[in-house]
Amino acid sequence: MKYPNGRKRAPLAGNRSEQNNLVNQYSNRGMTLEDDLNSTNEFYLQADKAIIHKKPTPVQIVNVNYPKRSAAVITEAYFKQASTTDYNGLYRNKYVDFEAKETKNKTSFPLANIHEHQIRHMEAVVKHGGICFLILRFTVHDETYLFPAERLFPYWKKRMTGGKKSIPYEVIKEEGYIIPFQYQARLDYLRIIDKLYF
Amino acid sequence: MKYPNGRKRAPLAGNRSEQNNLVNQYSNRGMTLEDDLNSTNEFYLQADKAIIHKKPTPVQIVNVNYPKRSAAVITEAYFKQASTTDYNGLYRNKYVDFEAKETKNKTSFPLANIHEHQIRHMEAVVKHGGICFLILRFTVHDETYLFPAERLFPYWKKRMTGGKKSIPYEVIKEEGYIIPFQYQARLDYLRIIDKLYF
Repeated sequence: MKYPNGRKRAPLAGNRSEQNNLVNQYSNRGMTLEDDLNSTNEFYLQADKAIIHKKPTPVQIVNVNYPKRSAAVITEAYFKQASTTDYNGLYRNKYVDFEAKETKNKTSFPLANIHEHQIRHMEAVVKHGGICFLILRFTVHDETYLFPAERLFPYWKKRMTGGKKSIPYEVIKEEGYIIPFQYQARLDYLRIIDKLYF
Repeated sequence: MKYPNGRKRAPLAGNRSEQNNLVNQYSNRGMTLEDDLNSTNEFYLQADKAIIHKKPTPVQIVNVNYPKRSAAVITEAYFKQASTTDYNGLYRNKYVDFEAKETKNKTSFPLANIHEHQIRHMEAVVKHGGICFLILRFTVHDETYLFPAERLFPYWKKRMTGGKKSIPYEVIKEEGYIIPFQYQARLDYLRIIDKLYF
């Protein structure tokens, strides 16, 4: 069974991500935030805890070849800018929606990583009763934070009116919630959702 | 602002879909179910009624060229089978999830149009408190129905145990809900959701 990350679904024991996890112990080294989130969402799905998927990368397909007796080959396509966030799904009867970003920056998260239309989307999600947040990784600190959308909006507004173009690391440390890195459900962000929204 | 359908968002008055709508009057002729749903979801979004998007087509990207001073070109990619349904989003605090299918068949909807893992996904969505259904169009009858996932499951099970490989048109007429085709919100399926789930 194929998953959006293109990885075959495997029994927990044999799960590739789990194996990586053993190899890397509890360190993040070498694993991208997307890998960690896909593996976490896979775990949630297998544990029947939540149904959260990464959306496929939006691609504008221009040209496709249909060779006889073999699969269609896309020979020309272009990346499109996503109009929403990357991840959404269902948890405890609630709609969950988030964007995940990594930064090499030590002291702040640059807002240039987020697009205006993604903010509009997040505002709409909050307004219509969804749970919406960012998952931010500071690779240098090897730390990953959950940062509620409601706390992002004021910084975005300030930025639009000539304010800071980034959110200071200290603010994210204070107003965000660190996601511990662990063996199963490597980035167990739903544990934070439980506390914040239920 | 780009939408998943690659179409620019336009003010309602100038909305291309609306114009098509005028041209086709209230007939479906020449418009695909996907066109109609994208235009409907666009209308819901602009009217701030719901946030429902079609997921991008899952593509396995194999080769990308990065020409200098121009956009990256995907030169080899393959279509992947989706692991979920095509549409999901948020409406009145609820997670909404559906698959849309057209059939040229006059007398029944062939279950071969749906994949086992999509059924698993729909079962999980229902179990976790989401609103889940099929939107089925019989192109020959020029009729579109909303068919709740809960009513699909028994037919799927029967099929698995050697039963019918399709759902008779008459059953869909009886157990489903016809979606009238109209000017604004061309396929106003949320009106049916309001009655069924709220």
